[in-house]
Amino acid sequence: MVKVKLKTPILKKQVIRIFKKFGLSKDHATISANALINAELVGAYGHGLSRLKMYCDRISKKVINPKPKIKIKKISQSVSHIDAKNSIGFVAADLGIKTAIKHAQKTGIGMVGIKNSGHYGLSGYYAEQAIKKNLITMIYTNAPPAVAPHGALKSLFGTNPVCFGTPTGSKIPFILDTSISVMNRGKIRVAARNNQKIPEGVALDKFGKPTIDAKKALEGVQLPIASFRGSGLAWMVDILSGVLTGGNHAGRVKDPFDDFSGPQNIGHLFITFKANLFQKNYNKRIKDNIRIIKKLPKVKGVKEIMYPGQNKFNRYKQNLKKNIIISKTTLSDIKILENI
Amino acid sequence: MVKVKLKTPILKKQVIRIFKKFGLSKDHATISANALINAELVGAYGHGLSRLKMYCDRISKKVINPKPKIKIKKISQSVSHIDAKNSIGFVAADLGIKTAIKHAQKTGIGMVGIKNSGHYGLSGYYAEQAIKKNLITMIYTNAPPAVAPHGALKSLFGTNPVCFGTPTGSKIPFILDTSISVMNRGKIRVAARNNQKIPEGVALDKFGKPTIDAKKALEGVQLPIASFRGSGLAWMVDILSGVLTGGNHAGRVKDPFDDFSGPQNIGHLFITFKANLFQKNYNKRIKDNIRIIKKLPKVKGVKEIMYPGQNKFNRYKQNLKKNIIISKTTLSDIKILENI
Repeated sequence: MVKVKLKTPILKKQVIRIFKKFGLSKDHATISANALINAELVGAYGHGLSRLKMYCDRISKKVINPKPKIKIKKISQSVSHIDAKNSIGFVAADLGIKTAIKHAQKTGIGMVGIKNSGHYGLSGYYAEQAIKKNLITMIYTNAPPAVAPHGALKSLFGTNPVCFGTPTGSKIPFILDTSISVMNRGKIRVAARNNQKIPEGVALDKFGKPTIDAKKALEGVQLPIASFRGSGLAWMVDILSGVLTGGNHAGRVKDPFDDFSGPQNIGHLFITFKANLFQKNYNKRIKDNIRIIKKLPKVKGVKEIMYPGQNKFNRYKQNLKKNIIISKTTLSDIKILENI
Repeated sequence: MVKVKLKTPILKKQVIRIFKKFGLSKDHATISANALINAELVGAYGHGLSRLKMYCDRISKKVINPKPKIKIKKISQSVSHIDAKNSIGFVAADLGIKTAIKHAQKTGIGMVGIKNSGHYGLSGYYAEQAIKKNLITMIYTNAPPAVAPHGALKSLFGTNPVCFGTPTGSKIPFILDTSISVMNRGKIRVAARNNQKIPEGVALDKFGKPTIDAKKALEGVQLPIASFRGSGLAWMVDILSGVLTGGNHAGRVKDPFDDFSGPQNIGHLFITFKANLFQKNYNKRIKDNIRIIKKLPKVKGVKEIMYPGQNKFNRYKQNLKKNIIISKTTLSDIKILENI
């Protein structure tokens, strides 16, 4: 794959221009561009600029509304419900986390459910916002079918991430943002293309038999982590983000790349609360916790016991100094979108 | 192992008498006996009457306070903090879930943090109480070291369960109550005793090498589910239940069977919210969700796709009709405790 280097600020301006051209307000275009660029910087390329064309296509096909009249309903001092009216996911999620932050700052705890939204990128990106305000956060979203429920021979759950974030008393936040599939579908696709095998326990073939053949895995189903337990976690996320909020659930979320027959109607749930709700010295306590764990004797070859989010933060810091590298395909998408 | 059958109501009265003899009030003795008997009925024998002697020993050694002056501090309309003053865990957890239920019924959402508590048995048992009030609940507690953080050569995290429960619109609640270790330590002990091998990926030996030798596994460390991801979930639970609440954390929770040098100071966190907070027809929606998933094509040999909690509920229903079967050792414990 040929890659090209681009300066981050220039690239961001380009993406904002494109989103504005597709009808988003300046604010919404900026929110969306920031989220896409952030994904590139943390190294989550699958959630970055390679998706730009898809978002624009969905706007053109009228399954994302570029000018949504988003409705917020305040349910209590701590709880709000948002109908995103098929906005681009970034905008709904940005409003969601900001509202949840306000609730938590006022009452100690906040909860925001969102329906009629779309793919919002990385949960961890929104978690960061809450952590900067010294809040702990739990974030859930569902996604198109990718993983089979335990015992089933058909994918239904999304890779449904479980996200938890907390301040750490240091610059690097603790953000666990983990999908519940054993392996990323993208990685299986790469293995299939290169005729490589995949590890055991990743997938079943179309007959329901375990397979290490990547091509057969793509025809079959992906497995959740830890068998029944991971399947239960995926189910939990589908309930919290879909059933609870009014979003689609039970496999009804459409694939954003392949299915333009209607909006995704993804649901999200944001829970936030003050880190020092019960203990004034929370930051000291969490620092102590991390310090003790890092000092444990290590498995041979392990230099440092890392907490979730540390690697991502380090990649972000490094990438911030460099130009963003994107594929020629993505660059050509950007050029076409700019000249439409 | 020789086993004996006992009638449930008679057994429960015996356990209440024993706890009262050890200084618990009638209320606290009843709460504790109910939790132990429930564990037997759902088939979670490791959390049942085999632990009765341990609880009594801890009272005798003054590391559980049979007459705790538990303090509840109301932080907001939705949030309370409980200092359990080294009560038996069941009593603290019972008060915790009841307080969280009241908060959610009043404001839509409730959160209760508890410090200075002890082992409370099964998280799912408390989840049931919230579900009966049409609430969704998330429950976290930490536990003595059993699982190594990812990359570490020493156990530090407990089996730290993640518990999520929701009403289902039917009699059988959805309760995911899952530990984050690949295999139960008890099962590894049984394998070691019978010279059986354990599966790959369950444990490392004392040198940090993967092992399928159960004896070497017991000398080494147990592994979390899904590697870095399970380790992250265990860490999350340690933060939510320990760091946040004021409980012990970072491996400081004492083993209740082996370490009588002081109280456990376990922490718990209970989060509750109305199932119909955002959608009035939640019960219809969740029923629909479960129905669709159950109708998926099944892997060969699978009769029914089960949701978390279904098996446990079925065991409970069956066991309720039968006498409780306990080991002769447990029976002899009970007899000794009754005559102390």
